[in-house]
This record gives sequence, C-alpha cells and structure tokens, in this order.
Amino acid sequence: MNRWVYLFSEGSKEQKDLLGGKGANLAEMTKLGLPVPTGFTVTTEACLYYLNHGNQLIDEMKDQVMAAVEKLSAKTGKKFGDLDNPLLVSVRSGSKFSMPGMMDTVLNLGLNDQTVAALAENSQNERFAYDCYRRLLQMFGNVVMGMDNNDFENRITALKKVNNLSFDNELTADHWKQIVSEYKEIYRKKLQREFPQDPIEQLYLAIEAVFGSWNNQRAKTYRRLHDISDDLGTAVNIQEMVFGNFGESSGTGVVFSRNPSLGDPGLFGEYLINAQGEDVVAGVRTPKPIQVLADELPEQYQQLKTICENLEKHYHDMQDVEFTIEREKLFILQTRSGKRTSKAALTILLDFYKEGIIDEKELINRIEAKDLEAALHPNFDEKELKLHESFLSGLAASPGAATGAAYFTAEAATEAKARGERVVLVREETSPEDIEGIAVSEAVITSRGGMTSHAAVVARGMGICSVVGCERLTVLEENKATVGDKVIEEGTILSVDGTTGKIYFGEIPMEEVTNTVALDELHVIWDRHAQIKVRANAETPNDIETGMALGAVGIGLARTEHMFFEKSRLLQFRQLILADSLDERLEVLKDLKEVQKQDFKFMYEAAQGKATTIRLLDPPLHEFLPKGADECREVAKELGKTFNEVKRKTDNLAEVNPMLGFRGLRLGVAYPEIYQMQAEAIIEAACEVTKENDFTIQPEIMIPFTIDAQEFARVRASIEEAIQKSLKEHEQALDYQIGTMIEIPRACFVAAEIAKHADFFSFGTNDLTQMALGLSRDDSPRIINQYLEAGIFADDPFQVLDEAGVGALMKLAIEGGRSVNPKLKIGICGEAAAHPKSIAFLNNLAIDYISCSPFRIPQAKMTLAQAALKK
Amino acid sequence: MNRWVYLFSEGSKEQKDLLGGKGANLAEMTKLGLPVPTGFTVTTEACLYYLNHGNQLIDEMKDQVMAAVEKLSAKTGKKFGDLDNPLLVSVRSGSKFSMPGMMDTVLNLGLNDQTVAALAENSQNERFAYDCYRRLLQMFGNVVMGMDNNDFENRITALKKVNNLSFDNELTADHWKQIVSEYKEIYRKKLQREFPQDPIEQLYLAIEAVFGSWNNQRAKTYRRLHDISDDLGTAVNIQEMVFGNFGESSGTGVVFSRNPSLGDPGLFGEYLINAQGEDVVAGVRTPKPIQVLADELPEQYQQLKTICENLEKHYHDMQDVEFTIEREKLFILQTRSGKRTSKAALTILLDFYKEGIIDEKELINRIEAKDLEAALHPNFDEKELKLHESFLSGLAASPGAATGAAYFTAEAATEAKARGERVVLVREETSPEDIEGIAVSEAVITSRGGMTSHAAVVARGMGICSVVGCERLTVLEENKATVGDKVIEEGTILSVDGTTGKIYFGEIPMEEVTNTVALDELHVIWDRHAQIKVRANAETPNDIETGMALGAVGIGLARTEHMFFEKSRLLQFRQLILADSLDERLEVLKDLKEVQKQDFKFMYEAAQGKATTIRLLDPPLHEFLPKGADECREVAKELGKTFNEVKRKTDNLAEVNPMLGFRGLRLGVAYPEIYQMQAEAIIEAACEVTKENDFTIQPEIMIPFTIDAQEFARVRASIEEAIQKSLKEHEQALDYQIGTMIEIPRACFVAAEIAKHADFFSFGTNDLTQMALGLSRDDSPRIINQYLEAGIFADDPFQVLDEAGVGALMKLAIEGGRSVNPKLKIGICGEAAAHPKSIAFLNNLAIDYISCSPFRIPQAKMTLAQAALKK
Repeated sequence: MNRWVYLFSEGSKEQKDLLGGKGANLAEMTKLGLPVPTGFTVTTEACLYYLNHGNQLIDEMKDQVMAAVEKLSAKTGKKFGDLDNPLLVSVRSGSKFSMPGMMDTVLNLGLNDQTVAALAENSQNERFAYDCYRRLLQMFGNVVMGMDNNDFENRITALKKVNNLSFDNELTADHWKQIVSEYKEIYRKKLQREFPQDPIEQLYLAIEAVFGSWNNQRAKTYRRLHDISDDLGTAVNIQEMVFGNFGESSGTGVVFSRNPSLGDPGLFGEYLINAQGEDVVAGVRTPKPIQVLADELPEQYQQLKTICENLEKHYHDMQDVEFTIEREKLFILQTRSGKRTSKAALTILLDFYKEGIIDEKELINRIEAKDLEAALHPNFDEKELKLHESFLSGLAASPGAATGAAYFTAEAATEAKARGERVVLVREETSPEDIEGIAVSEAVITSRGGMTSHAAVVARGMGICSVVGCERLTVLEENKATVGDKVIEEGTILSVDGTTGKIYFGEIPMEEVTNTVALDELHVIWDRHAQIKVRANAETPNDIETGMALGAVGIGLARTEHMFFEKSRLLQFRQLILADSLDERLEVLKDLKEVQKQDFKFMYEAAQGKATTIRLLDPPLHEFLPKGADECREVAKELGKTFNEVKRKTDNLAEVNPMLGFRGLRLGVAYPEIYQMQAEAIIEAACEVTKENDFTIQPEIMIPFTIDAQEFARVRASIEEAIQKSLKEHEQALDYQIGTMIEIPRACFVAAEIAKHADFFSFGTNDLTQMALGLSRDDSPRIINQYLEAGIFADDPFQVLDEAGVGALMKLAIEGGRSVNPKLKIGICGEAAAHPKSIAFLNNLAIDYISCSPFRIPQAKMTLAQAALKK
Repeated sequence: MNRWVYLFSEGSKEQKDLLGGKGANLAEMTKLGLPVPTGFTVTTEACLYYLNHGNQLIDEMKDQVMAAVEKLSAKTGKKFGDLDNPLLVSVRSGSKFSMPGMMDTVLNLGLNDQTVAALAENSQNERFAYDCYRRLLQMFGNVVMGMDNNDFENRITALKKVNNLSFDNELTADHWKQIVSEYKEIYRKKLQREFPQDPIEQLYLAIEAVFGSWNNQRAKTYRRLHDISDDLGTAVNIQEMVFGNFGESSGTGVVFSRNPSLGDPGLFGEYLINAQGEDVVAGVRTPKPIQVLADELPEQYQQLKTICENLEKHYHDMQDVEFTIEREKLFILQTRSGKRTSKAALTILLDFYKEGIIDEKELINRIEAKDLEAALHPNFDEKELKLHESFLSGLAASPGAATGAAYFTAEAATEAKARGERVVLVREETSPEDIEGIAVSEAVITSRGGMTSHAAVVARGMGICSVVGCERLTVLEENKATVGDKVIEEGTILSVDGTTGKIYFGEIPMEEVTNTVALDELHVIWDRHAQIKVRANAETPNDIETGMALGAVGIGLARTEHMFFEKSRLLQFRQLILADSLDERLEVLKDLKEVQKQDFKFMYEAAQGKATTIRLLDPPLHEFLPKGADECREVAKELGKTFNEVKRKTDNLAEVNPMLGFRGLRLGVAYPEIYQMQAEAIIEAACEVTKENDFTIQPEIMIPFTIDAQEFARVRASIEEAIQKSLKEHEQALDYQIGTMIEIPRACFVAAEIAKHADFFSFGTNDLTQMALGLSRDDSPRIINQYLEAGIFADDPFQVLDEAGVGALMKLAIEGGRSVNPKLKIGICGEAAAHPKSIAFLNNLAIDYISCSPFRIPQAKMTLAQAALKK
C-alpha cells in the first residue's frame, strides 16, 4: 500500500519533495510543539499519481484522507457536518517551490446550509457565519468548479447598489443570507447542479482541483520560465480553520523575525484585532505595527516573539510567519524564509553569526554575491522601481543605480556637472579621452562594447554605475540618441540600474540606507579561510585607497597608460609618438619620466608599502593619436609640426586589428627607451618613497603581451640596464621583480621557457579570452547575446572564465611555469577572475592572487573563502 | 706528433673540414687516378694552430712541409732551385666553404734569378719565363707581402707608354726583364729588403700569408654575413706548376660537365690553345667552345670528356672543372660542383636519375625548393639583373618576375590592360574588390600587409608575382607614390622580382627559357613516397585546373566568398546584408543560390570528381559593404534604399577588430538561411554534375571559425535540414561530409567534443597563428620585421609554422579529434603548411593532407616526400 497522506505530526522540514514547502514547514512546526492548527498533507506523489492515471482520486487515497479526517476529528473534537461543533478546514496547495498561478486556498470548507447555523451560534455572530459561507461558495465556485469570480462579485455589487451601500462591511447578516441564496442559484444555473452540501464531497473536489491546477497554463509557463521540473507535483494541506475574527481577543497578522529592509533584530510586521487574513490584504482597516500587540495582548505577543526566535534558531534563517489568535489562543499558520533586501541579508547573517545561531562556515557560505554587491552600491527603492518600466537594457557592466541628465560628450558632461547637474554620460563607446567625462558622471551608458569594454572597465574601477552594449540605442549626434521611436536629448533625465542593466526615463527614488554592512568584520573572517589573496586593479591614489579599504592586500595591476590620458600629458605623449628621431624621443621622455615618477610616488604612498604591480605601457600607440583631420591639425599646431607629418604618422600607426597589433612589449622591442623611462620612474620613485617613509617599496614591474622567452629576456635586459643606472644614481639598494602578463595563447605553451626569465606571471584573462575564442571584446556583445540566447554559451566569457579554452590555457601556463620555478608567483588580473562562477575553478589552480577592480574585491574574497571551504 | 700535411694521394673528398674543399677534391681526384699535378695540402688545423699560437710556423710544420716537398721532388724529378729542372709550384688557399676575399693564388713559386733562366731554356721561350717571374714577383709582393698592386701595374703602364704600346702581349722578353728589375727595386724601396730568392723561404712566407688571410677584414665580414664559423680555418694547397702555354699542343680551359644554364647533357665550356688560365680571364684572346677541342686535340678532348663523366658519376653532381694541357698531356687542376640555374638544376637531377647516376631517394632529397619554385615562374635574366639596382624591397609574397607600367587603382589597371599595356598594380593594400585589377596585372606591389595579406594570397593563387609590405613605399594618391625622394607615377615602368622581393625602375629582360621541367615525372616519384597528400586552395575553374596540373589530389579549400566579389554579384550580396527582414533576405538568397550553384557546377567539372572541400562564407560581413559616403549613396540608389539606411547598417556592422568579430559560423548562427542557401547550392550542383557526368561528386562542406561543439552541432543541424530538402527535391542520394576549420585556439582544446559532430577537421593556420600569437596578419609586417631583425623570430610565423605555439595547438586538436574518431580526416589549408620548414613537423602529426595555392603544390609534394624519406 502506498502512503498518500501524512499528518502534520508525522512529517518534517526535510520532506519538501513529498509534502511541499508549506506542508513540510507545518509538519516541522508541529514536531517542534508549536501551536499549529491540526491538519494533514496529501502528498505530491498522490498528485502525480492522480495526474498520470486518468485524473481519478483512487479509493486508497480517499481511504487515507478519511482516516486522517477521523484523526483530525479525534484531536479537535469537531466533526464534518456536525450541527453543534462542525469541523471546518482550509485547503491549500503547496509544492516544493512557491509558485504563483496554482490554485491557492479554499477556506471554511465544511460549511453548508446546516453547519453555517452552528457557526453563527458558536460565534454569536450570524453576519460572520454567513459571510464565511458565501466566501466558501465563492472560492469553491471559482477555484474548485472553475466558475467566473465576476459572476459572484456582480451580485454583491448589485446588492450594494440597490441598498445604496459602498463597502462590503456595511452589508448585514441578512444581506449575506441573500447573497448565499443567489450564489446557490448561480451554481444551479451554471453547473446544472447544487453546491455540494456534503463536506466530504467538498473536500474531495477541492483536493482534485489542487491536483489539476498543477497543469494549468499559468503554472506551466511559470515552471518553464523558472526552470522548475514538471515532475514535482503539488501537495495539498488540509488544516483545521481558526478564526481571528472571534472578537477583541482574536486577531491575525504577519511578522518577520527581523527587519527585512535593514536586518535589525526584533519582530517586524503588522496585525489586526478581530480580523481574518483577508482583511489585512483588503486594506479596509489599517493594520497596527506588531509592537502594539505587546500592549494589547502581551502574553500572546511574548509567545509569538519566543516562537519566532526559536524558529530562527531552528531554521537558521529569518522567518516570515503568519499567525492567528482565536480567543486569546495563538496559532501559527505558516512559516517560511522571509524575503529581504540585500543589505538586510548581510546584516542578518552577521548577527546570526554573532548570536551563535550560525557558525563561521555557514556565514561564509550563505552570503550571496548579489547581496554583497548591492550592499556596496546605492540602489533604487524596490517599490518605486516596480512603478517604472524600463525602455532600454544592456549589459550590467558596473553595479549601482543613479539618476541624471543625459549628455553625449565628455565636455558637455563636464560642463553640466560644473553647473551643478547630475550627469548620465551616453556614448556609442568611450575612449581613454573620455576619462574626465566619466569621472564626473553618475552613470555611463554605451550602445556598443562588452563587459570588458573601456566604459565598463573604467566605470567599474571608479565605482560608477554603468550599462554598456545597449544594442537598441543609436547615438545619432552629439546631442541626441534614439531607442526605437523614443528620443533621448541633451538633458533628458534617465535612471540607470547598473545591477540589472535596465534604463528608465525620469527619476526613480533611491533606497533609503540607514545602516552599513560591517565589511571589515567579514574580511577578517574570509581571510581566515581563503587560500588565494585578492589585490586591486587600481592606479589613482583614490582607487588604491578604495581597494585597500575594500580588503585588497596590494595592487595587482596599475595601468601606466591611464596616466597619459589627462589632457596636459596627452600632448606630451603624442609628441613622443610623433617624434622623428631617437633624440627627440629621449627629450620628451625626460619630461614624461618626471611626471610618471610623481604618479608612482603618489601610488606607493596610497598603497602604504603593500605589494604593487605596475604594468608597463600596453595599448596600441595609435590609441593616443589624434582622431580625424581637425585634431591632427590642432596637434600639429601645438607640436610645431606640419599637418602632413602628423597625418601620415597617424595613418601609419592605424591598424586593422589593433588588439592583435603593435602593443605591449612589442613597443618595448621597437622603442626600448620608453620602457626604460618607465622602469627608471618606477624605481626612482620607490627609492624616494622608501627613504621618506617607514615602509619599504618593492615594486613588481609587469611586462605585457609576451609571446616568447627570448622576446621577454631581451626587453627585461634593457629594463634591467636602466634600473641599475637608476639605483646607482640613487646610491640605494632595492628589491624589485620583473614579471610578465600571460595573455596570449602562445605564451601559455612556452611558459616554461618564459619562467626562466620572469619573476612572476599574471594572467590577463581579457586578452586571453579574446584570442582563445577569437572574440574581440569591443565587437562581442552582439555575438555573445546571440550565443547566450541560442544556449551555446552558458555565460558571457568575458564575465565568467571559459574553463574549457581559457582555463585550459591557464593550466598549461601554470604547469609550465611551475615546472621551472615551483614557487613562481602567479596572479590573475583579468575581470573574469573575480566572478563567483570562476573562482571555484581558479581555486584549484593554486594561484597566489587575483586582482580586480576595487568594488569587486569583497565579493571575490568571499567567493574565495567559500571555494576554500568546499575543498 | 700532430699531422699538419697531407699529400694529395693521402686524402679524400670526405676531408673537407681538414683539407678544405679544394684540397679534398684534389686528393679525391688523385685517389681516382686522374691526372692531377702532384702536390700536398697543409691542413686547416695547422692554420688554426698558427693563428692561435703567435702566428709562427712551428718547426714541426716546417719539417712536414719539407718532407712533402721532398716527395714532390721524388715524384716529379724536379727540385726547388735546381738549375736544370727547377720545381715550380702554385700555392692556393682552400677552406671548407668557398670564400671570396681570402688570399687566393701564388703561381710560379720557386722562380728566382737563377731558375728563371732554366725555365727559359726548358720552354725555349725567354719572354714566357720572364713574364712568369715578374708575375711571381707581383703576386707575391701583393698577396704575400701586402704591397699595393698598383705600384707594380704602374711600371708596366709606364713602360708601354714609353714604347708606345697598348697591350701586355706586345711586350718583349727584354721588356719583362726590365720589369723584373724594376719590381725588385720596389721590394727594396718599400720593404727595405730583397725579394726572397730562396724557394723554401718563398714557400713558408706564402703559407703564412694564406693562414693570415683567414682573419682579414673582408673574409671576416663575409663569414659573418654568411653565417660561417670563424673556427674553420683555411688549408693551403701546394701543387706542381703545369703550363698550358708550351706551344700549340698546350692549352687551358674551364668546362662544366653539363650545360649550367639549361641542364642539357654534354660538356659545356671554353679553352685557349697555348695559354694560361689568366689569359682566359684577361679577355685578350677569345676562347673557343670546348667542342672545337675535339678537332684540335681529339685524344685529349676524349680524355677530358671521360674524366668529366667519371667525376659526375663519382660526385653525383655536375662538375666545374679546370684543366691544362701541357705538351699534349692533360692535367686536371680543380673540380667542384658547378653553379647552375634553377632550371638546369632540376633537369640535371632528373637526367642523373634516368642515367642511373643517382637513385630515387637521392633525386627526391637533392631537389631544392628554390629551384623548383623558380622553374615554375618566369625570372629575370641573371646577368641583366646584376646591372640593375633595386630601389625598393618588401616581402617576397609570390614568386616570379615581371615588368609593367605602374597603376594605382584596379580600374586604371584594367583600362591600361585593355589598351594593351602590361600592368604593375601598386596599392597601399588590396581588398576583395581589387580582384579583377589583380587578375589583369603582371605583378602586384603593396606598401602594407604581410605574407598572408589579401594581395599576397590572391597573387599566389593566381600565380602572379607580388611583393607586399614595402614599408618605404608611400602611396599618396590615386596616381602617385613615393619611395624616399623617388616618385612612381602612373605609367612608370617597374620590374618586380617576387622571388627576392626586390623592385627596380625600368625594364629588365627575362631569362630565356628553352626547356621545361618534366614535373609530371617528379609527381609520380614524389607520390610513391609522400604520406601526406596535397590539395589545392582554389575556387575558379582556372585555378582548379592549374592545381590539378601541378599535382593536387583535390581541392582542400574553395572559398565561397570570393565568388561574391564580382561586381554584378557584389550588389546582390550587399542587398542581402542590408536586408531589413528575413523575407527580404530569403528573396535575395533565392537569386544568389542559382549563381552559387552555377559556380559550384563549374568547380566540380574542373575538379573532375576529385575531392572538393567547400568552405561556407567566412569573412566579416562588413568587408562586403560600401566604403565611404559616396559608395553608400551609390549603393542606396542601386538598391532603392535611403542613404541613411545604408549608412547606418554599414556603421553598425563596422568592427574594431574584424578578425575577431562577426565571422564564419557566427553568421551561420545569426542568419541560418545564408548557410542553408550555400549548402543547398553545393548539394544541388553536386547532384546535377553527378547526373551529367561519369564521375561522382562527394562534396565536403567546411564550416569556418568553430569554437564550440554545441555551436557546430547547431549550425550543422540547420545545414543538414536544408540538404535533406534538396536531396528530396532532386530525388537523389549523395555522399557528403560536413566538417570544420580548426582555426581558433579554443577549438583545439575542445576538439574531442567537436569531433563528435564533425566529419573532418581542416586547420586554418593563418587564423590560428593570428590568435595564438596575438598578431594580426594585416598589421604584422612591421612587427615581424623587427622581431626577425632582433633574432626573436627565426622565421615569419605566417610563412613557417610556429611549432611551439600553433604547432602545439594543432597537436592538441589532433589528439582530441582522433581520441573520439581515430580515422578522423585531418587537413591543413593555411599557407604556412606548404613551407618546407613546416613540413617535417607536419609529417609527424599524421595528418591526411595539406592544401595550398596551386603554384606551391610541387614544392609541398617534394618536401613531403623528403620528409617521408627521413622518417
């Protein structure tokens, strides 16, 4: 014999598969001895059997249901159809996962023309009893018999109209009696049958209706969208009715065991005296804060509080509890994990840990990346957000939310900011020259580019919210853009959600933040477990300080080229590139060296002696060159060259595929003096800062774009020469390291050779991904979107490390490098490294550190700690 | 005791290290019993010892030299300083490799004031004797004592002036006596010493001078340029003098054992009766063709002929032989491998093989790639070439030579060709739209782009000579280019050498070609050995036929996109790309399908049923789009669209790094209907051609740019669907295969997965190289040149497969693919595969075929046969 029915006292919270979420929790609470109205659950297996065998409740099921009803009667002293003390029950569906669209609830089942009188007598309230009865008729008709709810509601409306009344609560007992009579008439007319007076028949029909609703269209669609299996089925919970509307010592409410917005400890919620749950929802009366209950019904309040605390301890989670007080007796109708804001989620977990409810391991494992991320950035108020419809979306490149006026050039943005406006920079894509414009903006939107595009990287680095690759956005001119038939003009107010990638017209109020998350405490905990350290990708003192504050152990990637994009320096750098001779180049380099040295000193001081990896010039030279004839003319004038000279040199440096062009140490091979200048500046700055402070600088010089051991050795030798000269001039000894980026597939294959010359490796996963997948980060969003939609990619490979390709290359390189030097320091400074999905993989590679933009550090550290615990 | 001296009778041809090339050959001939004047060799070891130990001839060496001289005397009956029968010798240097700049020859050593009289007496020719003596004085003074040759020559000039004479041979015995006296005076004046009268002293000084000349500046420079070690040293050959000027039964000459220009069998060369070798060089008398000797001295001619034939058989090579006849007695003074033209080299080897001189293995191994290549293309006449100086050079992209008038656009080239001009197309770089312009040109020159640039690939495919990446060339406008201060205008006559990469002003006459190489015979021989087959990269019927004629077993790569660049089709294709809807696209595809089908039918017919691999559309779509506003306007007009529509779509498709962009099967994912159309055209054409002919077509459909198994499976499925539809419509069964290019690093790592869905792999080494090395082929020449100069690269990785990176990726892919399907067919269709240096590596990978442009096929087949023999 199969077992189709479990009493609440027979189940437990582990049986969600069999009893559904609601049933399992009711059983669990019953087991804990909490005051749960008695009841039982018909299992999901019964549902599946029913659906697969001709939609018939088999006798075995009916027998077991009847046996459970008998036990219910024995326990409550009430009986179905009893004229003194009738058994009334609620019937609710409850699958493993909460699922809207399924048949929900039938209350008051067991009422009929006879028992309604008993209810009136027992409650001393005829109006209440007939209201209950008409509700049963209505709910049963609608959800069990599939009748149109309007047919019922219309009768109430008509009655109110005739009597000139506005609200349901103005209707009298007689009115409800009339309605009951009319409802029964509707049954006859629509169904050619009477409303079933037999409570058993009511019950069977209700159970069948719940089972059948598993396969209604809305439920199926929901399951498909949320990837929930069709083979779970739903359980049915049958539970004795309790009434919160038996007068002033009754009531009903919903409480969270802690504040779901902020996470503060203590009950949070509301209740109504002399009311049923529906009344709270109906909004006819204003519920009172739960704290008031402490005065009105102090004993019950205390009991509720204790129960909530116990439930938290039991479930290790904040609970969302429905309760009813029937004539001073507290009943718990439901408990489940409470929904909460990201900020609350973190606070609650930390408090649980401190209160001893969860241990360190559970704390580490249960923090979710999205919560941590959201906690670091401002967000729109969730309720307000629901009132707005997004008109454009793109890649969520940098989290956070902001509102501002649209501007289309860095100049216009800067001017608007100076006028006191909040600015959203809207561009086709950004280039290094837009840096100042980005810095003054609240948000950056681009129509092109992927998660590792310039706009995305810079915005993330600055902690500015950004949405990139908005394919439907067409930036037409310097003061206009369109999205379909919608127009964005200069000054148009936009709200940008960098966490979801959605963009809205108009202003959306921000979430109110009254507490902050104690990140410092978390860092200490994570650091106790994580085997891989986290550094920051940062070069400005500001970013470096942010990185350190957010838990970085050092700088993993300082991009020296960023320092050249400031307007005043850009001209100098252009002069360098346009120089006709080595002598002219050396002349410019002399000036640039001083500038760089000062930059490095600021950097070192911000990093306070922590490890600092500085990458020598990486991007294609032509990125620095004037664009278009006008800029060429301007630059020519400024540098005292002819237009033709500038134009020709610029054209000459243009490349068809700049990502695969004249970059990185290829510059070092062609113009050794540039890298020598940078090395000198790095070393001399280190000497001076070491002398002026009580910490020591040991710079790590990183050479990008290596493909060959000889190539690296050659460039290293030329740098070493410059360094030795600098050290001699400063009469100072200094520890330093010279390593390389590993970012080109070939380097991974010849890593053992390269490791003979390099002090460290740092993987540049962006470039490695571009080359391993043949996918330009600038041109990729269109392709990646198609591949995600087609299910070819599970994730954007620029966001989540591609293990099969890029990961395999990294493994090769690590094996190669460590075969020569088992202690070779290995890091990763690409963006994908910090993604939680990538970290488990990285954790197995036994690298030393990853480096990411400051605001991604906490999440990276957490995921590393989680991965370490899993090992 | 070290052995420093070898008699000719004691050495052999294997001892070139010890005896130098000349000494080893003289010893070999002596051993063979040929009439070589007696002599001995002082070893290279003696030279090195001398140079490393204070430049002193040690006694041990002197003793051994004297012992050898004794033996010489014993054999010849002549003695140093003997007044009746004086021993006279020549002294020549001879290192392992022939090396200009070293001390060459001292003749007549052993003459002095006494022995000159004996020579006069013996020769019955006083004038001859004193001429010999003054030559000794002059040569000895110049090359042994380091005196200025002009000091000597001036005396002869002065004497002729005084006597009003023009030529040396007008000088009498008395004149030469006077000159001898004046020369001795010069010794006294310049050296403060007498000319050494002691023959032994002369000999030691000459030996020391030869040793010392190893380290003179010219020799050192030559060695450095030709990568010859400084540690070889030179030997010294001392040999009895024989004289071809002892009257009418004496003579001297140089013969090749076969014609060095054309390779025809039979002696080839010239001689003079009653003359010494120098006289031939001096050009005073006109030498006679060697065949005349058969009449003048028939016995000696026959002897010489037999000796040459024997030397060929012995050395397995065509010989360059110096001989002298002294009073009817033939002497062989030297033999060495004869220099020859490329065409002669091939003819000679094939003849050797047929004559049984060499076997098949030797034939295969000894053909040099450059000779084979040169034999396939026209070349400049070598002598004429020496008269011209190249003003520009670049990468030798496609071999051959041509002269024509410079034109700067495809249109201008086509018009000039129509006027009957021969054309050289000069461009910054070419694009697919230039194809017609290239086809009408004799040669193509570009200022940018590498060995795999568009111009290079297309020119190679068409067998048109081409030089690309001429960095110093600046193409200014549509009718002008400059190289430094030199200007190329429209119509400027240029001569282009695609084999050396050099470009000349003016016309250079072509080499006369009177024979052709029997390639067919070679193919049969190669095919007997090579394990890897060779296919052609070709799509036009013309190229396919060329490929088959040059030995291809099939087509390894037919690029369907090339078919769209014809003007009429380009418009249709543009309409496709610019289409706004699927319906519009399908409409255009209907027309394009018919066009493609016809193309494929022509292809199949040209290939005559041989294997045919057709690659589906590969390049970025925007390559097909109009460039610039004018073209957009034009296209808009032609297609009935607005300028803005065309412009926006064009801009939208533009990519920052097109090589890593929206290409290959990414198009197939986005627009399945395009690949479906191509697959239908391929299959339907195959059905029809199979029906119409007595051969069967089994097309191999190749999908480019795969990175993922699911991606490939998805595109394959959509193609299969179309194919099945076509086969059903044609009511025909047909074998076909669907495979993939492996050209992106990730594909190599997931090859096992891909192989589950693919029928074959074909490596695209160009793209694989671009991505493995992070090196855009379009932008690479500047970088590659720097890397070659710096010694970081041994070869251009686009020409010679990079084994460490690209090769390692290929190994992974082959292992992966074969692990799933041990019989997986694997080919390579990149250009680097066909390079001789790559083939040994490929041979070990056990691939099935390589595919290259038609004109590279013979060389590839040869190198494959050579590699197979080595295994």
